[in-house]
Amino acid sequence: MESRVFLLSEAQGLSKDLLGGKGYGLVAMAGAGLPVPPALIITTEACRAYLERGEVPGLMEEVRLKMAALEGLTGKRFGQGEGKTPPLLVSVRSGAPVSMPGMMDTILNLGLTLEGVEALARAAENPRFAWDTFRRLLAMYGEVVLGEKAEVFEGMLAALKAERRVMDPWAQLSAAVEAVFRSWLNPRARTYRRIYGIPEDLGTAVVVQAMVYGNLGEDSGTGVGFTRSPVTGEKRLYGEYLRNAQGEDVVAGIRTPEPLERLQDYAPALYAELLEVAERLERHFRDMQDFEFTVEKGRLYLLQTRSGKRTAKAAVRIAVEMAEEGLISKEEAVLRVEANALPGLLKPSVDRDKAPRPLLKGLPASPGAASGHAVFSNEGAERLNAQGLPTILIRPETTPEDITGMYLSRGILTARGGLTSHAAVVARGLGVPAVVGAEVLRVYPEEGRAVVDGVEIREGDLLTLDGSTGEIYLGTVPLVEAEGEALLQKLLSWAEPFRRLGVRANADTPEDARRARAFGAEGIGLCRTEHMFFQEERLPWVRRLILAQTEEEEREALEELFRFQKEDFKEILRAMDGLPVTVRLLDPPLHEFLPPLAELEEAVKAGDGEAARLLERAKALQEANPMLGFRGVRLLLLRPAIFRMQLKALLEAAKELREEGLDPHPEVMVPLVADPKEVERARLLAEELFAQYGPIPFGTMIETPRAALLAGEIAPLVDFFSFGTNDLTQMTFGLSRDDAGKFLPRYVEEGLFPFDPTERLDEKGVGKLLRLAEEEGRRANPRLKLGLCGEHGGEAGSVRFVAELLDYTSASPYRVLTARLAAAQAGLRQGVGV
Amino acid sequence: MESRVFLLSEAQGLSKDLLGGKGYGLVAMAGAGLPVPPALIITTEACRAYLERGEVPGLMEEVRLKMAALEGLTGKRFGQGEGKTPPLLVSVRSGAPVSMPGMMDTILNLGLTLEGVEALARAAENPRFAWDTFRRLLAMYGEVVLGEKAEVFEGMLAALKAERRVMDPWAQLSAAVEAVFRSWLNPRARTYRRIYGIPEDLGTAVVVQAMVYGNLGEDSGTGVGFTRSPVTGEKRLYGEYLRNAQGEDVVAGIRTPEPLERLQDYAPALYAELLEVAERLERHFRDMQDFEFTVEKGRLYLLQTRSGKRTAKAAVRIAVEMAEEGLISKEEAVLRVEANALPGLLKPSVDRDKAPRPLLKGLPASPGAASGHAVFSNEGAERLNAQGLPTILIRPETTPEDITGMYLSRGILTARGGLTSHAAVVARGLGVPAVVGAEVLRVYPEEGRAVVDGVEIREGDLLTLDGSTGEIYLGTVPLVEAEGEALLQKLLSWAEPFRRLGVRANADTPEDARRARAFGAEGIGLCRTEHMFFQEERLPWVRRLILAQTEEEEREALEELFRFQKEDFKEILRAMDGLPVTVRLLDPPLHEFLPPLAELEEAVKAGDGEAARLLERAKALQEANPMLGFRGVRLLLLRPAIFRMQLKALLEAAKELREEGLDPHPEVMVPLVADPKEVERARLLAEELFAQYGPIPFGTMIETPRAALLAGEIAPLVDFFSFGTNDLTQMTFGLSRDDAGKFLPRYVEEGLFPFDPTERLDEKGVGKLLRLAEEEGRRANPRLKLGLCGEHGGEAGSVRFVAELLDYTSASPYRVLTARLAAAQAGLRQGVGV
Repeated sequence: MESRVFLLSEAQGLSKDLLGGKGYGLVAMAGAGLPVPPALIITTEACRAYLERGEVPGLMEEVRLKMAALEGLTGKRFGQGEGKTPPLLVSVRSGAPVSMPGMMDTILNLGLTLEGVEALARAAENPRFAWDTFRRLLAMYGEVVLGEKAEVFEGMLAALKAERRVMDPWAQLSAAVEAVFRSWLNPRARTYRRIYGIPEDLGTAVVVQAMVYGNLGEDSGTGVGFTRSPVTGEKRLYGEYLRNAQGEDVVAGIRTPEPLERLQDYAPALYAELLEVAERLERHFRDMQDFEFTVEKGRLYLLQTRSGKRTAKAAVRIAVEMAEEGLISKEEAVLRVEANALPGLLKPSVDRDKAPRPLLKGLPASPGAASGHAVFSNEGAERLNAQGLPTILIRPETTPEDITGMYLSRGILTARGGLTSHAAVVARGLGVPAVVGAEVLRVYPEEGRAVVDGVEIREGDLLTLDGSTGEIYLGTVPLVEAEGEALLQKLLSWAEPFRRLGVRANADTPEDARRARAFGAEGIGLCRTEHMFFQEERLPWVRRLILAQTEEEEREALEELFRFQKEDFKEILRAMDGLPVTVRLLDPPLHEFLPPLAELEEAVKAGDGEAARLLERAKALQEANPMLGFRGVRLLLLRPAIFRMQLKALLEAAKELREEGLDPHPEVMVPLVADPKEVERARLLAEELFAQYGPIPFGTMIETPRAALLAGEIAPLVDFFSFGTNDLTQMTFGLSRDDAGKFLPRYVEEGLFPFDPTERLDEKGVGKLLRLAEEEGRRANPRLKLGLCGEHGGEAGSVRFVAELLDYTSASPYRVLTARLAAAQAGLRQGVGV
Repeated sequence: MESRVFLLSEAQGLSKDLLGGKGYGLVAMAGAGLPVPPALIITTEACRAYLERGEVPGLMEEVRLKMAALEGLTGKRFGQGEGKTPPLLVSVRSGAPVSMPGMMDTILNLGLTLEGVEALARAAENPRFAWDTFRRLLAMYGEVVLGEKAEVFEGMLAALKAERRVMDPWAQLSAAVEAVFRSWLNPRARTYRRIYGIPEDLGTAVVVQAMVYGNLGEDSGTGVGFTRSPVTGEKRLYGEYLRNAQGEDVVAGIRTPEPLERLQDYAPALYAELLEVAERLERHFRDMQDFEFTVEKGRLYLLQTRSGKRTAKAAVRIAVEMAEEGLISKEEAVLRVEANALPGLLKPSVDRDKAPRPLLKGLPASPGAASGHAVFSNEGAERLNAQGLPTILIRPETTPEDITGMYLSRGILTARGGLTSHAAVVARGLGVPAVVGAEVLRVYPEEGRAVVDGVEIREGDLLTLDGSTGEIYLGTVPLVEAEGEALLQKLLSWAEPFRRLGVRANADTPEDARRARAFGAEGIGLCRTEHMFFQEERLPWVRRLILAQTEEEEREALEELFRFQKEDFKEILRAMDGLPVTVRLLDPPLHEFLPPLAELEEAVKAGDGEAARLLERAKALQEANPMLGFRGVRLLLLRPAIFRMQLKALLEAAKELREEGLDPHPEVMVPLVADPKEVERARLLAEELFAQYGPIPFGTMIETPRAALLAGEIAPLVDFFSFGTNDLTQMTFGLSRDDAGKFLPRYVEEGLFPFDPTERLDEKGVGKLLRLAEEEGRRANPRLKLGLCGEHGGEAGSVRFVAELLDYTSASPYRVLTARLAAAQAGLRQGVGV
C-alpha cells in the first residue's frame, strides 16, 4: 500500500494534485533551502478516500509515525513539554490542488492541553502567551472541529476542561484532520468552486506543521508578503506585518497591520532577509508569490507561498516585466493574464474635478469606479439584482459567507480589514471595485443600514465607489474613462501573432465604433438599429409608423426615419472606414417603442387623445412572451416597408461615403430566422435594392435553435451566419434572462448549473448547436463566414471555445481587448503561429 | 424527342404524373370501354417546359397532328362545318396530377368562329343553340385567355368580331393551351397547393377533347354523379342533372339542377345506364367516384372521373363497406380514412342544409356543435348553469383562470389565439366544441358583451357554435347527431393489428380518464396536476402556499393540498386501473395561480387587505416571459416541499388503492428539465419517498431543446422520456403560441411556413431534435421508454412521424381514436403485422 503521509523532505517531486497547493509550496521552499518549519502532508488521495467511505483505516498510524519524525526534527514532544522544552504544537491546514483562499479550515496550536499550557508558559517564560495560545486553540478547535461559534465556545472554557478529547493531543489531531477533510464539502467552499469552476472531486490535502510563534513578544510577529505589488504590479516587496501576533489576526482584520516597509526602520536585517526570500521565491516559482511568514524571536520562518492574486493591471505589468526580465517567455506572459479581467484595466474612475467631496475614504483595494444601490447582505444583493438594480455591498468585514453578495455586486465596501483582507483579495479576483478598511463607517447589517458622520445609508441608497482611490460618494458622480495602457498594448502586440479568430465589436453609435476601433476591433459585428429608434427625436416618428393606418402615413414616417438612419449609418461607417460593419435590421417587437400600458392609461384618464390611440394599439400589440413574439424577420417580412427603409438607408449611406472618397464596407443581417424560407424571402427583398445600389454581404443571425438545426439549408442562401448566443441560449435552455434572476443565482449556487449560461457560453448544449450549424453550414456553403455576436463574444472562456470554430467574434467595446487576448491564448494552445 | 401529346388510345399505361388526374381518368375510362369523347392529352412535362422557358417549340405541330386524328375519329373538321356536318369543337381543360378542383381553368366550345356558328346552326338545325354556344365560348375565352371579366366581354361582342385570333380556331387553341399552362401559377391555385401541401413543380396536363353538347334540347343534359353518397357514404347513385345545359351551368349554380333519381321517372334507360357506369367505375377505380357526364340527344358520354371527396363519416362507411364487398382489402380500408377527422365523427354538427348564414367564422378548434346562452365570465357561466341554462363562454382569449367557465359551458368562443392556444387545448381536452381566433369579434368581458359587424351579443343571448367548421350562428340552429360509431369501431378493430405505437391519453380528471379508456387509451401519458390546483375549493390553499412566510404556513397549505391531490389521484388511478398513469408534477409559474394584477389593484383600492399581500407577491413573481421563467423543475427543486407533497399524494393514493385490491400503475414525470443535474437532484428527492413507498417509474419531459441535445446524459437517470412537443416547438422556433396569432396565420398563408408547427409536428427542426434524443437516449439507456405528450400526440401526421421512433403517444381523449388509426396506418406502411 502506498504512503498517504509525507515529510517535506520525502515529498520532493510529488504532484501538486497530491500535495495540494500549500503542501507543494512548502515542499518546494524546503527544497530550495528556504526556512520552513518541519511539516508532514496528508495527501488529497486520503481526503478522497475519507469523503467516499467516512474513514481511512491506518491513516492515523501513518501520521503518528511521521509525527515522531517531526518530534525528532524539532527536538520537542507532541503535546508534552519537558522542563524548559515547550511541547510540540502543530498547525493543521487544508490545501487543495487549486487555491481557494479562506474557503476551508485551519487550526493553529494544536496539541496543547491544560498540562501543556503550563509547560509552554514555563518554556516561554510567558504565562500570558501560553494562555493566549490555549484560548486560540479552543476557539478554532471549537469552531472548526466541534462546529460551535467561537464566542459561545470561549464562554464554555471551564466546562470543557473536562472534555477528554481536548485533553488528548492525538485525539485533537485526528479530529482536526477529519474536520479539514470535511471542510472540502462546506457550503462556502462549494460555492467558491462553482464560481471558479473548480472540480468537486479534487479533495484537499492536509498540512500538519510544527508551530512557530509570532506572538512571543515584540521581536516576534507575523506577516504576509507579495514579491511584487498585487495592485499595480510594481516590482517591490509589498505586504503587511503585525507584531506579536499569530497569522489569523492578519487575515481576520481584527487588528490593522503596518506596511512591510516599516521593518526597514526597526528591523532592517529582517527586511533584507525578506527581500532575499522574495527574490529566491520568484526565481523558483517563476511567478509573483504571495507568501506568509512568521518571525519567532527574530527568526524568520516561511509558512506558505503561492502565486499571488493580483489586479488585472498588476497581472499585465508582472507578465510583461517578467518576460522582459527573462524570467518567463513572451508566450507565457500572454497566457498568464486572465483575459476576462482586462476591461477592469480600462475601468472608469471618478472624475475628481467634477466630483463633490467624498463622503468617506478607505483603502483602495480593487480598482475601478462604480455606482449602485447599497445592500447589506447576500439576500439584499439578490433582491435588488433580481430587479435589475446594480448593488454596492457594504459589510463590517467580509467572510467567505458573503461570497454571493460580492459576486453579484458592482462594488464592495468594508469598514475593517487591510489590502490583503478577505474582501480585498476576493474583489480583485472577481474584478469588482472595492474599498476596504473604511474605519469611520459603522455598519449594522441586521438593520440594513450604515452610519458615517451622522449620515445614514439605507438599503437602496445610491452610492459611488472608487476602488482606485478608496473614495466613496453619496449618489452618482461623474466618471472618467481610463486611458489605454502602454503595457497592455505591449502584451497585446506579443499576443497578436497567435490570434486566428477575428475580433469585431458590438457598437450602435459612432462613439462606440471609435472606442472599439481604438481597442483594436476589426469591424463591427453587430450594429443594433433599434437602438437608433429609441432616441428622443426619433421616437415620435417610430410611434407614427406604428399607428399608421394608411400607406401614406406609413410612408411619411418611414421617410423621416430613413433620414435619421442614413445619417447614423454614415457616421458609423465613417468611424469604421475600411472595415466591415454588420447592420442587424429591426429586432424587437413594435410594442417596445410604446410607453408602458400603465403610463398610457394614466394619460388617457388625463384626457390625452393621442394616448388613447397609442393605448389601443399597445393593447393590440401586447404579448404574453415578447421574446418569442412578433419581431425580427417576422416583422420585417410582414411589414417589408420597414425592411426596405433600413436597407436603403444603409446602402445610400455607403454610396454617399464612397462619393466622399471613403471605403465603407456595410453588411446586412436579418434577425430571428427559424426557417430557410424566411431567409429566401428576405434575400429577395434585399436583391431589389442590391439591383439598384450593388450588392453587399447578406447574412442571418442564427439565434433560434431551429435555425441552427437547419443551418445546412440556410447556408446556401447567405454570405454569413452570426450566432446570436443571447437568444440562442435563452431558447435552448428555455429561460428568459429577464426572469432568470428568480432562480438562476440559486441554481448556480446549488450547483445545478456549473455557471450562469447567459454569461459564459454553455458548450454542452448551445455549443452542440454551434458545432452542428458550423459543420452543416460550411459543408453546404464553403464560402460561408461565421461569427458570434452575443454577450458571450467578449467572455474569455466562450471566445476560446469558438476560436477554432468560427471566423470572428464580436464583443462590446471594452471587451474587445478580452476577446483579442483570449483568442490569442486559444491560438497559442492550438499552436497557431508557433 | 419524346412525344408530349397523346390520344387516349396511345396513353394507356402512362403515369398520372404525366397525364394529370383528369387525363388519366379519361384514359382509364376509355380503356375500360366506357363512352368517352375522343381526346388528346398534352403532358405535364410540356407544361413544365413552358413555365420554364415561356414557349415549347414544336408543341403546336404535335397538337395539330393529333387533332387530325381527332377529326378522323369524329368525322368532323376542327372549326369548320361542312353541309350538315357541324364543325369539330373541343374543350380545353387543365388536369394536374393531384386534384385541385376548380383551381385552374377550362374553356368549352373552342374552335368556334363566326362562320362556324352558321355551320353549327345548320347542322343542329338550331340557331339558338349555335349562338348560345358561341356566347359561351366568347365568355370563357375572354375570361380565361384574355383575362377579361365575362360580362364586359359579352358587351364587346361586336367589337370582337374583328379580332383576328377569335376568328382563327388554331390561334384559339394555341392561346387556350398556353392559358391553361399559365393557370398553374394563378394565386388561388398557389394558395390551394400551399394549403394542401402540393409541390409547386408538378405542372398541369391539358386535355383537349371533342365537345359533346348537353344543350341540344330536352333529350340532352349534363350532370355530376357520385357512386356513393359523399355525405353519408350510403351505397346509392347520388348526384345532380341539368337538362339542356352544358357542364359549367351546373358548376356555376346559375340554374338549379335536379337530383339524379328523377331520371328514373322520365329517362329510365339513361338512369339504368348510369347505374351500370357507376358500378363499372367503382370496379375499375376501386374507390367511390365523382364523375361528370353529358347526354347529347339521349347518348351518354363520360367527361371526367375522380375519387370523390367525402365527409369523415362517409369515408368510414365507404371504406368499411367496400372492404366487406370485397372491392378493397381491410388494409386498404384502414389506410383510406383521414385519421384527423375522427373526433368530429362522434359529435353533432350544424345541419348546413337548414342553417342560416353564419354570423362569423373563426378557427375550428374543437369539433362538435352546440347551442347555448352567451356568458363572458366564470360567474356568468355559474349563474346561468345554476338556472339550468346551457352556456357558450365568450372570451378575448382564455387563461387558466377561466377553467370553471370552460368546464361548465357547452361551447367556447375566443377572439384571439390559434389552434393550440389555451382555449383550443383545454376545449379539446374537455371535449367541448370551440371556435378560437375569431378576430373580427371584439369582446368586452367586463361589460358582458361582444360586438361583431355592428351586431351586439349580450349575456344570455342564444348562439350556436360549430367547432368542426368554425362557424357561429345567432340563435339556435338545427343540428344533426353523430352516428356510425359501430362502423368506426369495426374499422379500428381492423386497424389494431397493424399498430405498434402505444396510445395513451392526456387526462387530468377521472371523467377524462374514463372517456379516454372508452376510446381505447392504454393509459394516461400526461396528467397535469396544476389543473387540479385551479379548482375553486383549492385555489385559496394554493394562494396560501404562495404567500406562506413561515415553514409552518407552507406546511399547512401543503397538507391541505395533499388531501385534495391524493383524492384526485385515487380517482384517476381507479379509472385507469391496471394501466399506467403518468403524473407530471407542477409545471406553471406560481403567478398563474394569482388573480390578474389589474384585478388585485382594484381590490386593494377597495381596501382589501388580503389583496394587498397578494398584489405584493404577484408583483414580485411577475415575469417578462413566463414561458421561459421560474416554473417546472426549477420551482420544484427550489421549493422541494411542493415536489414532496405531490409525489407523496401519488404514492399514498396508489397504496390505498392497492389496499382496496386494485392494481394502480402510477409514474412520475418532471417538467422543463434543461440539464442532467436537475434530473439527478429531482430523482434524489423522489428516492426519499420511494424508500418509504417502493419505487415507481421516474421520467422527465424532454421539452427544452437543451434536454433533447443532452438526452444521452439524461437517459441513464430516468425510466422514460416524454417529449413535450408544445414547449419544444415553441422554444425551437422561438415562438410563443399565445402570441403567434400576430404572424403565424399570415406566415402559413404566404408559404413562409408550410403549416402551423404548433398544430402539426415540424419534422425538419423539432423532429431532428426528437431523432437525436431518441438515438442518444436509447444508446445511453436501452431500457428507456419514449413517449410524446404534446398536442401533436393526437395529430395524424405527427403520430405517423413518431410511430417508428417512440414507444407511445398521448392524445387528448377524443383524439385517442385519431392516434390509434394513424399509428395503425404508419404500421401498415412500415409492414407491421403484415
